[in-house]
Amino acid sequence: MKSFGSSKEFNFGKDIQWDEVGDGVRRQIMAYDDTIMLVNVEFKKGGIGQMHKHYHAQVTQVISGSFKVTIGDETKILNGGDAFYIPPNVLHGAICLEDGILIDVFSPIREDFME
Amino acid sequence: MKSFGSSKEFNFGKDIQWDEVGDGVRRQIMAYDDTIMLVNVEFKKGGIGQMHKHYHAQVTQVISGSFKVTIGDETKILNGGDAFYIPPNVLHGAICLEDGILIDVFSPIREDFME
Repeated sequence: MKSFGSSKEFNFGKDIQWDEVGDGVRRQIMAYDDTIMLVNVEFKKGGIGQMHKHYHAQVTQVISGSFKVTIGDETKILNGGDAFYIPPNVLHGAICLEDGILIDVFSPIREDFME
Repeated sequence: MKSFGSSKEFNFGKDIQWDEVGDGVRRQIMAYDDTIMLVNVEFKKGGIGQMHKHYHAQVTQVISGSFKVTIGDETKILNGGDAFYIPPNVLHGAICLEDGILIDVFSPIREDFME
């Protein structure tokens, strides 16, 4: 597997660009090495994380807002303080019900975010 | 390596216990499998994450509050919106300057938190 090295050790939010990913969603890649990657994802109400899957394991903390989250064939509403786990290769997606922020963390690194 | 399986997919903050870890610090294990683990860590002002190291890679998002963070021989002050990366086996620690919350994520799972 190609190596992407690692992020800096200290990463200040004001210094890191936000990437628009469409559908009322933008993300900020905060910290990573080849084994792990942490990404802030900001959603506007109505923003959509389309159903998709990847081989990476994913853990997500809901920081604020409200989200209708689907993992496999189950859908629940999660709010600030809640979290979810997405096993490798399981279809998942989210619809933002109230403006909010998710912390998405992947293992290993999302190579597709680095290109 | 021993397997700990995985957390549930949907995890509601109100349902998950906080573990006191002393020094004005408590934590809540939100989501995991053997490859990744996400933990909320709440600090009171003056709370201390003692200097320590582990073989896991770590990424941390500062959600709120203010922290004096040491990684190796470098120390910086981080606030909400900032993040840090701790390479495997590097000494690190934090002192809480203002009440706050960190999202600590590890790869692989912190076996020591499961016992």
